[in-house]
Amino acid sequence: MTGFAFHGGKLAEAMARFGVGDAPWIDLSTGINPHGWPAAGTLAVDWQALPEAGALNDLEAAAAAFFGTDPAHVCAVPGTEIGLRMLGDVLPGPAVHAWPSYRTHGDMIAGSRAVPPTDLDREQASTVILANPNNPDGRIIPPATLLDQLEARYVDGGVSWLVVDEAFADVSPEISLAPFVNDARRLIVFRSFGKFFGLAGVRLGFVLGPREVIAQYRRRLGSWPLSAAALAIGTAAYRDTAWISATRIGLREQAAALDTVLARRGFRAMGACPLFRLIEVDDAAALFERLAKAAILTRPFDYDPRWLRLGLPAGGEGLDRLDRALAEHGGADG
Amino acid sequence: MTGFAFHGGKLAEAMARFGVGDAPWIDLSTGINPHGWPAAGTLAVDWQALPEAGALNDLEAAAAAFFGTDPAHVCAVPGTEIGLRMLGDVLPGPAVHAWPSYRTHGDMIAGSRAVPPTDLDREQASTVILANPNNPDGRIIPPATLLDQLEARYVDGGVSWLVVDEAFADVSPEISLAPFVNDARRLIVFRSFGKFFGLAGVRLGFVLGPREVIAQYRRRLGSWPLSAAALAIGTAAYRDTAWISATRIGLREQAAALDTVLARRGFRAMGACPLFRLIEVDDAAALFERLAKAAILTRPFDYDPRWLRLGLPAGGEGLDRLDRALAEHGGADG
Repeated sequence: MTGFAFHGGKLAEAMARFGVGDAPWIDLSTGINPHGWPAAGTLAVDWQALPEAGALNDLEAAAAAFFGTDPAHVCAVPGTEIGLRMLGDVLPGPAVHAWPSYRTHGDMIAGSRAVPPTDLDREQASTVILANPNNPDGRIIPPATLLDQLEARYVDGGVSWLVVDEAFADVSPEISLAPFVNDARRLIVFRSFGKFFGLAGVRLGFVLGPREVIAQYRRRLGSWPLSAAALAIGTAAYRDTAWISATRIGLREQAAALDTVLARRGFRAMGACPLFRLIEVDDAAALFERLAKAAILTRPFDYDPRWLRLGLPAGGEGLDRLDRALAEHGGADG
Repeated sequence: MTGFAFHGGKLAEAMARFGVGDAPWIDLSTGINPHGWPAAGTLAVDWQALPEAGALNDLEAAAAAFFGTDPAHVCAVPGTEIGLRMLGDVLPGPAVHAWPSYRTHGDMIAGSRAVPPTDLDREQASTVILANPNNPDGRIIPPATLLDQLEARYVDGGVSWLVVDEAFADVSPEISLAPFVNDARRLIVFRSFGKFFGLAGVRLGFVLGPREVIAQYRRRLGSWPLSAAALAIGTAAYRDTAWISATRIGLREQAAALDTVLARRGFRAMGACPLFRLIEVDDAAALFERLAKAAILTRPFDYDPRWLRLGLPAGGEGLDRLDRALAEHGGADG
């Protein structure tokens, strides 16, 4: 199970390992929207030319409007993963990262210490890295709480930063700190394109921060940070307000349907992020294996043998297959 | 002219500035192969899923075979531009960069000094950054000369690095230092996908170096540095040995045809890189404007008012239009 407990999305590895005939796999190992923005494959992409600067400006403007912030505070990056890691060369330590959370947060700034989320407000002298909503437990910290903690750091003479990874915030714009980014706050926000829009293969993310931080990113990225496809797809998708509104409603309905199935089989779903659910069982490894043998890939965690995370099935048939596979397992204590 | 003298590829800006009716523009402002690898638009790309690790391994193996080196010394990056700039966080200074050359080379390592190429071998204490073939003059330094200079640095107790940007080396594999990269040499080579394969919008490049350098890059890039399209297109293109062989021949023929037109109009083409030619005229700005008014975009240089660089026209019609526009200019001293 080890490889699967490190990152989600290892479907080819699962197919090779559990080989269950011709059954089409259901990949619930990530928090990627299974009903992605539908026009990605239909856009004409100019692969030949170097992307023009205007295309990057257009994308950042469209994304900034979606985030509710000024484009001057927004810098596109070729995937949030690179953006997060680049921060280690932009911000000095010391740093702490909320744990458990997204594994990369511990790799961003050299020497970063893992800290329980409840202890973060004591870390006045360190840059604080956290995800909101958190992954994998879906916990949401109200933005007012985070802003209060940031203010308190200044009062106490702190010079450190608050870094919030909002990769899963698109469904719930009211929890985002993006509108509060400005030149005076030591606040950096990361946003991701691939999860809500269901297009993780595009590799597109954003860093939001004071202009001095944005300038440092631009210097490291140069003139052509994004592929022609990321520019075309991202710009069109962020402008598609009708699809965005409908998807926010649809994802909540799909999460509710998943909760119903989980509850019927004796599991209680944790978290408030509609893109995934975390369940706690006595032996998550056994349930992971059982589901994998039914060609359903989920996400175990090497640091907690009781946790299993499930993304949203793509439709009723997938949900039914999950329902049946969970029934065979015999409930939460099976 | 200023904007056009900074980077090539500003076609939209040129269209707005010189607006010449409906004439289709000929963009000769870059060194991108106008007859790119043809199947980019036909490959099925999975935009939804996170790319699997196996896809990255496959790409790096295909590219390494093309470069003539071991995949353990090859790391893919989302565009050489980011790869070059990332080196500033990987290698310490001091550094010097050959000048004139690609503008980014001066931005890579903080405090880097511009040095004429003839003085590079005196810079024992500094990391040396150069392009081979050089851009814009197409000058090629024999690989044996560069290897000798690198050896001489060790003899004199130097601890600095040789960094060679081989963005335009694909046509002439015999000049590449890629086969000489290993763990013992302080040699780093950059390769680019977009120029020879004519697909600059894909954003794909490679850093080649000792494994300790590769490991530093991987830590900064994380698990998904490339889009699904870059993985699919890059892997298939580097494996297309028939297209690669034919293109190496074709580009030399097209460069010879361009040389013929230039010579007929009184210009002498400089350089040994078939993807572009540099000409020297009394007033390059005037020739740039004249060609732009004929809807032909070329590349002037703010640091040398006599230089104009021309990429390869896409076909006979483009070459004829260039021929006529140069005739109207009245030759090298017109």
